Amino acid sequence: MIKGFPSTMNDDYQLNLWKIMDYAAKVHYDTEIVSYRNLQGGKIHNLSYKEVYDRIKRISNALESLGIKAGDRIAVLGWNDHRYFESYFSITGLGAVMLQLNQRLHLNDLDYILKHSEAKALLFDESLADIAKPLIKNNKLEFSILMSDDPSKVDVDIKGKLYNYEDLIKSFSPKKNYEEIDEKSAATACYTSGTTGKPKGVYYSHRSLILHGWSINTVMNIKPDDTFAAIVPLFHANGWGAHIAATMMGAKLVFPGRYTPESLANILLKEEVSVAAGAPAILIPLLEVLRKFDPKPKFNNLRFVSGATEPPLALMLQLKEFGINITHAYGATETTPLVTANLPKKKIKLLKEEEQIENARKQGLPVFGVEVKITDPAGNELPWDGKSIGELLIKGPWVAKQYYNDERSKEQFIDNWWKSGDAATIDPNGYVKIVDRIKDLIKSGGEWISSIDLENYLMAHPAVLEASVVGVPHPKWEERPIALVVLREEYKNKDFKELENLLKDHLSKRFAKWQIPDKIFFVNEIPKSSTGKFDKKTIRNLYKDALSK
Amino acid sequence: MIKGFPSTMNDDYQLNLWKIMDYAAKVHYDTEIVSYRNLQGGKIHNLSYKEVYDRIKRISNALESLGIKAGDRIAVLGWNDHRYFESYFSITGLGAVMLQLNQRLHLNDLDYILKHSEAKALLFDESLADIAKPLIKNNKLEFSILMSDDPSKVDVDIKGKLYNYEDLIKSFSPKKNYEEIDEKSAATACYTSGTTGKPKGVYYSHRSLILHGWSINTVMNIKPDDTFAAIVPLFHANGWGAHIAATMMGAKLVFPGRYTPESLANILLKEEVSVAAGAPAILIPLLEVLRKFDPKPKFNNLRFVSGATEPPLALMLQLKEFGINITHAYGATETTPLVTANLPKKKIKLLKEEEQIENARKQGLPVFGVEVKITDPAGNELPWDGKSIGELLIKGPWVAKQYYNDERSKEQFIDNWWKSGDAATIDPNGYVKIVDRIKDLIKSGGEWISSIDLENYLMAHPAVLEASVVGVPHPKWEERPIALVVLREEYKNKDFKELENLLKDHLSKRFAKWQIPDKIFFVNEIPKSSTGKFDKKTIRNLYKDALSK
Repeated sequence: MIKGFPSTMNDDYQLNLWKIMDYAAKVHYDTEIVSYRNLQGGKIHNLSYKEVYDRIKRISNALESLGIKAGDRIAVLGWNDHRYFESYFSITGLGAVMLQLNQRLHLNDLDYILKHSEAKALLFDESLADIAKPLIKNNKLEFSILMSDDPSKVDVDIKGKLYNYEDLIKSFSPKKNYEEIDEKSAATACYTSGTTGKPKGVYYSHRSLILHGWSINTVMNIKPDDTFAAIVPLFHANGWGAHIAATMMGAKLVFPGRYTPESLANILLKEEVSVAAGAPAILIPLLEVLRKFDPKPKFNNLRFVSGATEPPLALMLQLKEFGINITHAYGATETTPLVTANLPKKKIKLLKEEEQIENARKQGLPVFGVEVKITDPAGNELPWDGKSIGELLIKGPWVAKQYYNDERSKEQFIDNWWKSGDAATIDPNGYVKIVDRIKDLIKSGGEWISSIDLENYLMAHPAVLEASVVGVPHPKWEERPIALVVLREEYKNKDFKELENLLKDHLSKRFAKWQIPDKIFFVNEIPKSSTGKFDKKTIRNLYKDALSK
Repeated sequence: MIKGFPSTMNDDYQLNLWKIMDYAAKVHYDTEIVSYRNLQGGKIHNLSYKEVYDRIKRISNALESLGIKAGDRIAVLGWNDHRYFESYFSITGLGAVMLQLNQRLHLNDLDYILKHSEAKALLFDESLADIAKPLIKNNKLEFSILMSDDPSKVDVDIKGKLYNYEDLIKSFSPKKNYEEIDEKSAATACYTSGTTGKPKGVYYSHRSLILHGWSINTVMNIKPDDTFAAIVPLFHANGWGAHIAATMMGAKLVFPGRYTPESLANILLKEEVSVAAGAPAILIPLLEVLRKFDPKPKFNNLRFVSGATEPPLALMLQLKEFGINITHAYGATETTPLVTANLPKKKIKLLKEEEQIENARKQGLPVFGVEVKITDPAGNELPWDGKSIGELLIKGPWVAKQYYNDERSKEQFIDNWWKSGDAATIDPNGYVKIVDRIKDLIKSGGEWISSIDLENYLMAHPAVLEASVVGVPHPKWEERPIALVVLREEYKNKDFKELENLLKDHLSKRFAKWQIPDKIFFVNEIPKSSTGKFDKKTIRNLYKDALSK
């Protein structure tokens, strides 16, 4: 590394998460933070940045008096509400690490995470007490804290020291001057929930979270007069960092708590939400709900960043009719998560509408700060020609360079590049397209078939609510694709054989004959992972003999 | 400083200026960079990011072969064209420091800057050879480089080694892999051009410039499909960092070269510029030109960040009719420069239009990352009540904590806070309003009068093109305000006594009688500093006896 001439800038000023809250509570002190807890059995909390910051400082003082020190790990189990949001600052402001627990993981995995991280304490929502109890029983936590609107109503027969969050708020002072923390210290942590093996720990630094916040604002353009809804679970890769970006800008924050598609739709409309982020797994049922509303609801340009999986074309077009505009973005737990966002270049805007839409479905351009490349299995870089398929490798200041204390780091990192496991093309304009998970690509007669392309085109058909395509063993072609389809309500009574032919005809408009699935199975539900993605490993297992006879 | 738990992020990834260009040249390789040199006697250059990056790497290789090493300072004297832009990356990519020279400074000051910085080389534009020659003669530079479209036509009888920029481009390879540079190393430098004493050196780190780039994008929201015009001189506090922010986003760049208000207006229209930044000193003559165009030109929402001085209300309203929308922002050489930007909160948007406009004239909200406070002369912090006037102090990761090798650092910095010398109020909503320079506040009979408020209200009158107000000695009241006014063309033939009464009546709509200037002088020109601000020290001197008899 080259050392140059000394600068006269305040370069030792540390980028710390608490400074975002300190800023917002001062400059945007009376901007609202609304927290819904209806479905958790609680009430709606109407707070402000100033009030929330006071609560944060009270909890910090409480944690400190309970023995928490810089570097300690504290796990949080909860829904997207003000208390979870507060823990992003109350814990990290002490230099401790806020550990995000995905409540949908198997108990064994959650237990592993607590042990692997050596967590000292657990904060849990009243509605998740049944998950918290065995975790507390099996781990040597120093204490746990119940987050509830009315603790007296909660059955918490729990081993060890238990405190009530709101009692601590009442007992401790809101006076606190946070100290500067080395910006390279971990602030939060999230364990990946892969379908194979134990979860792997990603520990995000204060620095990475703040740089990422600025970067995501180059995509979301959040402004002080925006209303941001935190839809992505705050335990999924830092809730995609969007609530951090929104706090940086002093936007009004809306936390929907535990929600159904119906309650979410109502909250988005009532609060006049103008910017949000979430996965198609949320958007698909949300659209179904909006379609049923009478009169037809209309948002005044709700900017919605969609990630996790490619949003189906039909979904994007139909949401647009409700005033919801999708920007497709891509990232992962290991990348904080923003890697690419589909911002149109001027030359794209000059294309025919059809081609523009085609382009909008791609994962998008890498944002500045993140470097990407695609490589063949030998590690050779492949060209950005829109055709070459390789594994996507990612590097940058908010990208992991290893897993915490994990042998598997060796397999997934090389020279500070993270090997994403995603098969991608990059076109000459720099737009990344994820073709498949490398392990989900289907190899049929020596040719590659992308399961994702087939799924998305299937989901563009009006009869299809969800579709998943996997490769299963075939005596002649090695592998052949099959599809699982969940039909829309109004198609469920039709003849399945006719529907299968209809969908195959639909696919043949776009795909060569050898690419079309051999069989389409109509199912009520497609197995999903804890993060809402199709669990293709399970599907492949269930259907492994589908084409064997 | 607290040390926490180790993160697993790539926290040692250095934020380097060259990575912005490396990114843009890859992801936005064919996006245009247009450089106008008509008024410098050259041609229009139509380039792309890829082509400009190739040129940058060639110049880096040339500089290296000429002996330039990390840490060396290299001065640049030029207009806003592709070559100046290139030097932001070619010099800094080597770990050397790109020193911005303000061609409008006195030769003695420029000479001082070269000696104080111990510059090793000078790059200069052909049209500024007359300034370069004595500088080269009086300094022990190792070499200098002439930037010209056609060096054969330039009279350059220059002492010492002289190279032609375009010859170097031809002679050296575009192959170059930049190394990582410690992000706390200086990348660029700018000397403040205060009216008193010698210039003071501010050296910007790679880190500060990149963080600032992200931050300015939270205000300007530059997108890949934008066209950005670099109007602020690239030697004024890094051209306000806007071209760096635009490159981060891969926007089309337009460099107007040396320009007149007419040529600038034509360039903005022809290139369909959608985002820019500049001072009212540029906007005022630009508006005059646009008013003369027939048919009336109309921009499709040109987002324009206005800084340096408060934009007059009339200017903002009239530019709006041409489709130019002003966002008022504030900063200084010592702050890279962004400190505040006038983004409206939701509660501001609910106000009556008149009150909204009133608020839009303020310097705005501090952006996240920058801390501000106002203090009394004893250093006590004053409340954010919109009334208390104090000196504005500023701290943050892109704010200087000292001047380079300068005794005066002691007076202007305290605990990493920079004392701006600006008198300001901050209202409860966090909007900063610069009332005056502390030394320009007028003290009349024990009361403070803001010269800036009077100026701005004067400039809102249709007869007034420019107005400057200063306090001059008064036998009874200690000081009293007087005004200097430049009339609009169509008012220049009117009776001056009548006009004076007219303007005093105008002021009395808003100001108390004791606040209104005793005399208004109609002049052809108001003395200005090298940065285009009113030179009040000179004005006060010229008019010091105006009220003494």
